[in-house]
Amino acid sequence: MKALLERIRAGELPVEEALEALVDLPFEDLGFAKVDHQRQLRTGAPEVVFGQGKEPEQILALVDAIRSRGQLALVTRVANEAAERTCAAFADAVHNPLARTLLVGERPRELTGPVAVVSAGTTDRPVAEEAAVTLGALGHEALRIDDVGVSGLHRIVAQRRNLEDARAVIVAAGMEGALASVVGGLVSRPVIAVPTSVGYGASFGGLAALLGMLTSCAAGVTVVNIDNGFGAACVASRMLHAPR
Amino acid sequence: MKALLERIRAGELPVEEALEALVDLPFEDLGFAKVDHQRQLRTGAPEVVFGQGKEPEQILALVDAIRSRGQLALVTRVANEAAERTCAAFADAVHNPLARTLLVGERPRELTGPVAVVSAGTTDRPVAEEAAVTLGALGHEALRIDDVGVSGLHRIVAQRRNLEDARAVIVAAGMEGALASVVGGLVSRPVIAVPTSVGYGASFGGLAALLGMLTSCAAGVTVVNIDNGFGAACVASRMLHAPR
Amino acid sequence: MKALLERIRAGELPVEEALEALVDLPFEDLGFAKVDHQRQLRTGAPEVVFGQGKEPEQILALVDAIRSRGQLALVTRVANEAAERTCAAFADAVHNPLARTLLVGERPRELTGPVAVVSAGTTDRPVAEEAAVTLGALGHEALRIDDVGVSGLHRIVAQRRNLEDARAVIVAAGMEGALASVVGGLVSRPVIAVPTSVGYGASFGGLAALLGMLTSCAAGVTVVNIDNGFGAACVASRMLHAPR
Amino acid sequence: MKALLERIRAGELPVEEALEALVDLPFEDLGFAKVDHQRQLRTGAPEVVFGQGKEPEQILALVDAIRSRGQLALVTRVANEAAERTCAAFADAVHNPLARTLLVGERPRELTGPVAVVSAGTTDRPVAEEAAVTLGALGHEALRIDDVGVSGLHRIVAQRRNLEDARAVIVAAGMEGALASVVGGLVSRPVIAVPTSVGYGASFGGLAALLGMLTSCAAGVTVVNIDNGFGAACVASRMLHAPR
Amino acid sequence: MKALLERIRAGELPVEEALEALVDLPFEDLGFAKVDHQRQLRTGAPEVVFGQGKEPEQILALVDAIRSRGQLALVTRVANEAAERTCAAFADAVHNPLARTLLVGERPRELTGPVAVVSAGTTDRPVAEEAAVTLGALGHEALRIDDVGVSGLHRIVAQRRNLEDARAVIVAAGMEGALASVVGGLVSRPVIAVPTSVGYGASFGGLAALLGMLTSCAAGVTVVNIDNGFGAACVASRMLHAPR
Amino acid sequence: MKALLERIRAGELPVEEALEALVDLPFEDLGFAKVDHQRQLRTGAPEVVFGQGKEPEQILALVDAIRSRGQLALVTRVANEAAERTCAAFADAVHNPLARTLLVGERPRELTGPVAVVSAGTTDRPVAEEAAVTLGALGHEALRIDDVGVSGLHRIVAQRRNLEDARAVIVAAGMEGALASVVGGLVSRPVIAVPTSVGYGASFGGLAALLGMLTSCAAGVTVVNIDNGFGAACVASRMLHAPR
Amino acid sequence: MKALLERIRAGELPVEEALEALVDLPFEDLGFAKVDHQRQLRTGAPEVVFGQGKEPEQILALVDAIRSRGQLALVTRVANEAAERTCAAFADAVHNPLARTLLVGERPRELTGPVAVVSAGTTDRPVAEEAAVTLGALGHEALRIDDVGVSGLHRIVAQRRNLEDARAVIVAAGMEGALASVVGGLVSRPVIAVPTSVGYGASFGGLAALLGMLTSCAAGVTVVNIDNGFGAACVASRMLHAPR
Amino acid sequence: MKALLERIRAGELPVEEALEALVDLPFEDLGFAKVDHQRQLRTGAPEVVFGQGKEPEQILALVDAIRSRGQLALVTRVANEAAERTCAAFADAVHNPLARTLLVGERPRELTGPVAVVSAGTTDRPVAEEAAVTLGALGHEALRIDDVGVSGLHRIVAQRRNLEDARAVIVAAGMEGALASVVGGLVSRPVIAVPTSVGYGASFGGLAALLGMLTSCAAGVTVVNIDNGFGAACVASRMLHAPR
Repeated sequence: MKALLERIRAGELPVEEALEALVDLPFEDLGFAKVDHQRQLRTGAPEVVFGQGKEPEQILALVDAIRSRGQLALVTRVANEAAERTCAAFADAVHNPLARTLLVGERPRELTGPVAVVSAGTTDRPVAEEAAVTLGALGHEALRIDDVGVSGLHRIVAQRRNLEDARAVIVAAGMEGALASVVGGLVSRPVIAVPTSVGYGASFGGLAALLGMLTSCAAGVTVVNIDNGFGAACVASRMLHAPR
Repeated sequence: MKALLERIRAGELPVEEALEALVDLPFEDLGFAKVDHQRQLRTGAPEVVFGQGKEPEQILALVDAIRSRGQLALVTRVANEAAERTCAAFADAVHNPLARTLLVGERPRELTGPVAVVSAGTTDRPVAEEAAVTLGALGHEALRIDDVGVSGLHRIVAQRRNLEDARAVIVAAGMEGALASVVGGLVSRPVIAVPTSVGYGASFGGLAALLGMLTSCAAGVTVVNIDNGFGAACVASRMLHAPR
Repeated sequence: MKALLERIRAGELPVEEALEALVDLPFEDLGFAKVDHQRQLRTGAPEVVFGQGKEPEQILALVDAIRSRGQLALVTRVANEAAERTCAAFADAVHNPLARTLLVGERPRELTGPVAVVSAGTTDRPVAEEAAVTLGALGHEALRIDDVGVSGLHRIVAQRRNLEDARAVIVAAGMEGALASVVGGLVSRPVIAVPTSVGYGASFGGLAALLGMLTSCAAGVTVVNIDNGFGAACVASRMLHAPR
Repeated sequence: MKALLERIRAGELPVEEALEALVDLPFEDLGFAKVDHQRQLRTGAPEVVFGQGKEPEQILALVDAIRSRGQLALVTRVANEAAERTCAAFADAVHNPLARTLLVGERPRELTGPVAVVSAGTTDRPVAEEAAVTLGALGHEALRIDDVGVSGLHRIVAQRRNLEDARAVIVAAGMEGALASVVGGLVSRPVIAVPTSVGYGASFGGLAALLGMLTSCAAGVTVVNIDNGFGAACVASRMLHAPR
Repeated sequence: MKALLERIRAGELPVEEALEALVDLPFEDLGFAKVDHQRQLRTGAPEVVFGQGKEPEQILALVDAIRSRGQLALVTRVANEAAERTCAAFADAVHNPLARTLLVGERPRELTGPVAVVSAGTTDRPVAEEAAVTLGALGHEALRIDDVGVSGLHRIVAQRRNLEDARAVIVAAGMEGALASVVGGLVSRPVIAVPTSVGYGASFGGLAALLGMLTSCAAGVTVVNIDNGFGAACVASRMLHAPR
Repeated sequence: MKALLERIRAGELPVEEALEALVDLPFEDLGFAKVDHQRQLRTGAPEVVFGQGKEPEQILALVDAIRSRGQLALVTRVANEAAERTCAAFADAVHNPLARTLLVGERPRELTGPVAVVSAGTTDRPVAEEAAVTLGALGHEALRIDDVGVSGLHRIVAQRRNLEDARAVIVAAGMEGALASVVGGLVSRPVIAVPTSVGYGASFGGLAALLGMLTSCAAGVTVVNIDNGFGAACVASRMLHAPR
Repeated sequence: MKALLERIRAGELPVEEALEALVDLPFEDLGFAKVDHQRQLRTGAPEVVFGQGKEPEQILALVDAIRSRGQLALVTRVANEAAERTCAAFADAVHNPLARTLLVGERPRELTGPVAVVSAGTTDRPVAEEAAVTLGALGHEALRIDDVGVSGLHRIVAQRRNLEDARAVIVAAGMEGALASVVGGLVSRPVIAVPTSVGYGASFGGLAALLGMLTSCAAGVTVVNIDNGFGAACVASRMLHAPR
Repeated sequence: MKALLERIRAGELPVEEALEALVDLPFEDLGFAKVDHQRQLRTGAPEVVFGQGKEPEQILALVDAIRSRGQLALVTRVANEAAERTCAAFADAVHNPLARTLLVGERPRELTGPVAVVSAGTTDRPVAEEAAVTLGALGHEALRIDDVGVSGLHRIVAQRRNLEDARAVIVAAGMEGALASVVGGLVSRPVIAVPTSVGYGASFGGLAALLGMLTSCAAGVTVVNIDNGFGAACVASRMLHAPR
């Protein structure tokens, strides 16, 4: 586009023709996509690969491409085989089997936050772990609080100060997902609820928790997709990066 | 059947023929239905009319028939017009517009219990009220605890002793229905959860609360149909009447 | 509780007895609920009444109670009749029929923000309006951007700078709700998506938009209940109030 | 907390500071959680591990921890491999492959009850078995009545006396779940219905039975989650433990 | 077509042209539709108008057209106003407000059957009534058995002989629809189950009964659409008309 | 019961005591269950084992028990291994791998009917085959008509005479299930529609076909559960056995 | 933008600054939206107002705005009152109460096509009518074929030639929607299926027809939203306008 | 039929008898099915085998039959083993493992079109590939545009010219499926949307994308079944073949 403008300036291109040419220019050339890429480079935010359903070679190639641009690579939902092959190829690769994540490259050192990452039961931990790893990759401190489901209410109430000190709270809970409502009523921080597919029967793969979190009687609760710990961390990160 | 047996005894009826006759006897004549009627009379439990969709005249006629047998009549989901017409006809009729119930006849005086009846929000009260009126008609004391939804957790926690002192706890809650899980984790009494149709959007007419209560992470929670305060009271009553 | 502690100090109460008494103290007396009330008074945040299904007298009484404590009252989903009666009783009541809100009392003057409030079509406006009114009552500036549905993509793209300048973006959209994904991909602010019940047939009362927003391919999108403009504003407010 | 109170008494701590310290004390220290633990020890009730999705080592470790506290351990939904490894490690471990349960430790000897555990068909037995094993671990006698589905009505009618003699009735049924309604109409005991995932096509993994049981025309029927034999037993146990 | 064949015979039409003409002949002219019309005339079966959503004038016109062909007219789901206007115009019109049917013309006198028409509760009667009226119009005797829901099992068991004597059994039941399973297990006649929309909450407009009937554990149960008493009668009629 | 009646006759048992004893007699003793067993023996109808989820040994044992009573055994949804083991043990066992059925014993020789068994596509054949095998075992002739889906309308229209000559028509169709409507409109026989789980995406495991068949615009169509070829054959058999 | 380019040309704006300004230019100024507007003016295609939920004044104002630009206005789903008020204000307004449409302005005279618009039953006609009116407004001839549902198969088969002569076929059908499959199998034209909300019970507001049409066994069938006759016409119009 | 007509002509067959014979003639003999076969032969369109669930031998036999008629065979959803065996048997077989298709025979050389085939993400490519292969087999040029999901809006906007130059646009997208709405608003070509089952949680196997596409706010969008790339290509082909 710059070349085009310079040709106008030089009088080589009539305004009418330039106008027509500009309308047909691919969108990306208008610059804003480039701006996005530059911001990502500047902030050191990782490029993300959704690993599910991808072959080990595909993941290896994608990570290689990201690393060759000097960026941090985050692979989510990575299978063990793909993770092992990538770890063999990259010395600085870190595989978290619980979170099913793979981080390749240097992670941010100065962390902002913290963002509390709360899970209701043992089986909700992989989702919470995915959120925590993502937060770290995005440059935020994750404060983990596990096994504080509402069947033993004192456990979450005992964490009230910690939750209030965080800048946002991610709550991962399956079954009926009541923990999100309880946290939303307990503290004044924004609550990002992640329904998990933990449960059986009438939990219908996370539907019960999803509907429960959406209809929470507590204000300040917002919801992402079932098992989407990664997405919850992205939302929290956007909150922390928003201008003052 | 007695007549038939006496004819056998008197030798008027061969055993083979009697056998055949017995197989064809209407079931009710075998006595156990009669037994049921007698127990109901003995215990003073009310006969119940489901008022929804019935014409005022139908309700009036049904109440009249019950009263003529000397029993207490309980009408649930009664419309205002039918209630007013019945009240005009029966001096001892009591209409509860919030619970949409009508009680005609003398209620039990000695009450067993108590059964705690807990509601999450103001709009859940009609369901709790229906449960409480039904409990009274069945001879049980209802301990009402209202507006203790989990968005202000201290409210329900402050009632812990009262709940523990009850013999059973009925919890009526709409939206995400998390109150049932919290109560189930807080006390050791059986919890009968009633999802209510209170809410909008993703509550889908009570479905969110229903699924949430069914998948509760707290043990000891059991569920009846959406808005079924009457049914919850019946279950509680059966619990209290069960032999020791 | 203070009195109790002073009696211990004065030696009037043995430690063992005090311990038992403390365990049975209602939760609220432990102070944290009180703290909540004080914070609300200090910040001038409104008390909120959910108006749907409430009688005009009930709303009038609730507003009266809130005003007598010197606080701002916000009634959502208020029917016209209840609104008119309240306006007749309170000179400073402001009724917004589109948003179905009623504000009684002095609104915050210094506003933080802005929060962008984006709607896809004309029929989504009531939900956006409810969000905007709530933001104002909570002390935030709302930047309204209407009728920018994705069927004419240039409309939302033209607003890119405005969206990026906001601290958070609320997107209200019915039908397929694709606007949330497009906004999430266009800017780097947190996006709070509100599916609306606008549409017919396979929109199933907002379900299509709800599922679409939850499964958005864009990171940074989070979702509240169908038509819940109020809830979206509460989440945004919590984001802006979170400590740095 | 006791130490804190003693410091007040000794005059070492001003009342104001003590007040603040108490508000911030973790909830558990307030005593009531401890009370729960003591009651569990006193009653001999088991600690329960939900085995599904847990590795054999995790289950082994959890059982070991429970046994080291001298308590009875109940593992539900345990896989065969985990069960075998636990049985190899603990001489008093009892594996029930049908119920998918594992009991480690001395079971209660004096049993209260009985609680009738009724199943509709052969394929519903695992759920009924889980309920029965749980009842035993909780100190209750289970009266098993199997294969009495409503397609041969005489089978359940023949059990009327046995059902009436029980203190509560658990009904496990898949397909359309009609057995719960029939039992609810046949006897006056509380009926805890467990829909099972038995069936195909329009049973939709137990949904048909679940909806059928929730909308039962018989009073006194209450419902737990699909296949949740354990939960049904817990509810029955709470009924039997409720004070008189 | 006959004319066409005669022209071939007369040699006026070459075979090739006739072949082409026949391929393009409207289907009806091939005779089989005509055959259907003649059979209907011969058997005296009624022509049916689905009255729902039709204006009184439309219904009046349709009935007039049917009557002018000398046939019996059956209108289902007819509104009161349309029924009254038709009754005013036709002396032999019979309006059944419970069944919401209108019969105009002479009904069949010699009836075959009987077909048992069973309803579970009072509120299921309109559906049963529609089935019974339709059976009568189709020339079959309907044996009505009402209020025999499974909550009082003896009521339906007492009807076993009557059911077995019928040639088919129609069962109309709402809520959980268990009556269909019980009847299917009790007798050896084909059972045509009609789920009704009676119920509330988790009955979801008849869905619970529909799923329950489809997954019935009793063989010999088949299902028509919710509230479709008319359809059940048509199926029964086809059974009775099938050749031996 | 006979003994009891003889004791009455002999004067050994007072009438009052006899009355009480009769009420408590197990239902089966009243004779009607026995009657059922005798009819089954008389008619030669098979005893049926639902093979899905049963171990080979269980199936072998069940077949053995049935055969030892001299009856025909029909196993449905039998796995290959169980079938092979049974075939090795019983010389007269016939395994149909497409229908997943196993017939052990002498099948009825004189067949009534025919019942047309129609399938829409190749993948619907296993369900049609299950229906056909069951019909044979129940003593009826099955007239198979395959691959006549509505995408090539002439195929089913060409079968009109054959369908009309049958006494009932079973239609197995997946995807949208339109074949049932077309057959219902084409012939005047009762149509028993079997939705199959054939299809993908929006067929949702047979739900599309199920709903389509239930809402068929053609009268005379009735529906059984998804993939339930066995059930369809049972209904047809009851139709053919119904008295004239 | 033209002004901007001229300033570059005049040397008043450095290329770097111009580049930055262009990136921030609202999208619409880039010209392509304008192009769209011009094409619409050129082709005479109508501007469309979705009338549902709009006040008569709003509709009047929108129509006035469209007419003042000299364009044809099409209002869909218009209420009678709004239609009458618009007709009173505009002499050339044409209200079609069956289609619930309002056309204001001169309609296209030269029509392309035809597009066949087929409806299954009388109650599907409003949807077909909406499609036909829209086609006319878009400049296409609509060939109406009504009441050809599959319960009388000869009716649609008789129309085979007419359908084949059309350039596209719109099929509006409720209940099970089988007509779309039958038409798709009968002719080789693209079939745009419109499920209608006609039906009751298991039609679930058009869901049965929707799923049936999506899973059609006939190739060449594509689907729009329930009751969306307007949308079907738009798709057909795009087909006819696509370049050769 | 020709023989029959000639016999009429020859006077060997009376008109009445001929009439009767014609009514009973199988439909296919009337010619129109034959016409279909001839058209298919003439146009060179392939015969299609749905490979899913078919054994390798079945597929081999079907392909052999098609090839022996000299036609092109297209197998969709073919498993690798069946594909390899067919490739070994037919030298001109082409297996596309991504599309899961198998083409045997000579493909059309002169292609019409193009039809744009757009996919949102990498995981949607198999569906797009199936559409593209089918288009080629049907004689159309496919213009592939991949990885243009709406999270990076500039990617699809940059393709506007290419899309507008196509005669129809197929859009394959999972998750929320918003790409279909964006394309529908961007260009004036008919858009055939294919929801894919890509996604997790609330995407419910493609349901979210399906509902989103059906309720698209953009006109001109029409939808086929989930993952049905083949069906989308068939619709596009019918559009291109429709007469002018």
